[in-house]
Amino acid sequence: MTRIAIDGMGGDSAPQVIVDGVVQAANLFDYEMMLVGDETRLKRELNNYKVTGGRIFVHHASEVVSMGESPVQAVKRKKDSSVNVCTELLKRKEVDAVVTAGNTGAAVASSMLNLGLLPGIKRPGIAIAYPSAHGISLAIDVGANVDPTAEHLLHYAIMAEIYSRFVLKKRNPSIGLLNIGEEEGKGTEVTKEAHKLLRESNLNFVGNVEGRDFFTGKCDCIVTDGFVGNVVLKIIEGVVDVVGTLFKREIDKNPIAKFGALLCKPALDAIQRDTNYEEAGGAPLLGINGVVIISHGGSTAMAIRNAIRLAATSAELKVNDQIVNEIQQREKEPKN
Amino acid sequence: MTRIAIDGMGGDSAPQVIVDGVVQAANLFDYEMMLVGDETRLKRELNNYKVTGGRIFVHHASEVVSMGESPVQAVKRKKDSSVNVCTELLKRKEVDAVVTAGNTGAAVASSMLNLGLLPGIKRPGIAIAYPSAHGISLAIDVGANVDPTAEHLLHYAIMAEIYSRFVLKKRNPSIGLLNIGEEEGKGTEVTKEAHKLLRESNLNFVGNVEGRDFFTGKCDCIVTDGFVGNVVLKIIEGVVDVVGTLFKREIDKNPIAKFGALLCKPALDAIQRDTNYEEAGGAPLLGINGVVIISHGGSTAMAIRNAIRLAATSAELKVNDQIVNEIQQREKEPKN
Repeated sequence: MTRIAIDGMGGDSAPQVIVDGVVQAANLFDYEMMLVGDETRLKRELNNYKVTGGRIFVHHASEVVSMGESPVQAVKRKKDSSVNVCTELLKRKEVDAVVTAGNTGAAVASSMLNLGLLPGIKRPGIAIAYPSAHGISLAIDVGANVDPTAEHLLHYAIMAEIYSRFVLKKRNPSIGLLNIGEEEGKGTEVTKEAHKLLRESNLNFVGNVEGRDFFTGKCDCIVTDGFVGNVVLKIIEGVVDVVGTLFKREIDKNPIAKFGALLCKPALDAIQRDTNYEEAGGAPLLGINGVVIISHGGSTAMAIRNAIRLAATSAELKVNDQIVNEIQQREKEPKN
Repeated sequence: MTRIAIDGMGGDSAPQVIVDGVVQAANLFDYEMMLVGDETRLKRELNNYKVTGGRIFVHHASEVVSMGESPVQAVKRKKDSSVNVCTELLKRKEVDAVVTAGNTGAAVASSMLNLGLLPGIKRPGIAIAYPSAHGISLAIDVGANVDPTAEHLLHYAIMAEIYSRFVLKKRNPSIGLLNIGEEEGKGTEVTKEAHKLLRESNLNFVGNVEGRDFFTGKCDCIVTDGFVGNVVLKIIEGVVDVVGTLFKREIDKNPIAKFGALLCKPALDAIQRDTNYEEAGGAPLLGINGVVIISHGGSTAMAIRNAIRLAATSAELKVNDQIVNEIQQREKEPKN
């Protein structure tokens, strides 16, 4: 049975929401779950729920990395933090995958420290699936690596392609390089060099894409550095809120419009459902020698539940073995 | 009388839309306008309109830089291109400001070549005004400089502060540095260094801001590099379209919602009006020794008309003199 370690103390509403999500997963899926963190608090939370079967175990960890802490220092100092214990369990193969909604930097640092990188990969990248005009697309990296080289970006493309193929079930997924214009000569020195590497690879590379292509679904995977990717992610999160706020402000001025909005509600709810990040639940930290899923700090129980399913699926499909094979095969091939 | 040169051949629908905008401006404002480009085509377009007064002049330029051309090469090769002739007219003080909706890179390159930089400034930056939850905010740079140093970012902050004070009429405008977290140690080497410079300046610096703060209006000016700024700009443009498309798709499925949407229309129109880039009309290229306003390639006539007004206002308020004074004063002051 697939075993998942969940960081019980990571996230804005931990441990309550995390425990809720784990219980939901236990009642829906056939996995074993190791809830990692303060044993007393986690058991007290678990007592609020009825869980069918005996598939949730609590593993004690005495420390917590808070959201604002400096990641590398926190991971080095707090060896017994919940996130670190999770990645240690994975290292010792006591679990098959890890889910954490805690400090993202700490999750990356702890994964690097305890699990290391896949052979041939030089930096990890966070890949996030999001809804576009043509179904689910993938963006990598959204925050693990703020100063990537062109080679790191090429590796992100290779990993995103494999993840899209095996997990998102895309056929021949296309890759776009996020840039400030479609022409080849655009951008920074790094994006120019990455464009060249991607063009020379045998990936299904569609060339440069622009900000608007996050929505158009022009390609299945958008490759970018972790700084730009993170800013974009937070803008997209913010946009849904701002459109809602503006709409509410306007209809409050006009009773007829308010009545109209009531009639539109099913349509608005459908949009919100289709663009809901909770469906994906979490973002894989690709390139790490182990399956680590990073969830949003503000995750709901439903998002945690879906992240657990994603973690189990990624482990079962052996996505990392596919990445290693692909990288090794490319190294053997003569350059064209 | 304030004189504005307008690149008649720049933009996706030039010269038609440009001429339309210039005619609108001539009928509304008390400026003299020099329409630069192919004399025959421009005069033929002008014949379609009735213009009160005699305030539109045509200045011939035999070449055009197209939207896809490599900017620096195009400017060097096409000395008699409409954008180049505009900046030459400004250099010779035959006009007070320039408006172009053509190739942005060519506008920047031509401005650098013919006008140069303000004393003390090392790189130009494009500043764009956009609507946030608390009125108009300003973002700089959105595409002139993809690899800025920390000092360039400090200069962007100083120029944005002055522009916000004098043109946007903000009192003590606040500055935020776009980053991937609010904590001081976040980001790239350049953003960390820029954070330090901004903290040590006597600007009203609120610290790091994140993607979502483009909408929250947490600060009056957001400083970022031209790569991130350009991606963000194009995402924000794309978002309005995608929300509209999703909404239309959903209400088409449901006749009651469709009727509701009709009742909501005044509210939706108000949102569109409040978030309409046409109101601003164009973005100043700050740091250049002359007033150059860059408009969107897809500008409507109304956007061009407003860009002309913005160009005239910037020239009349002597924004550049204020920037030079501020930079010189800072160089004299002892560092705190």
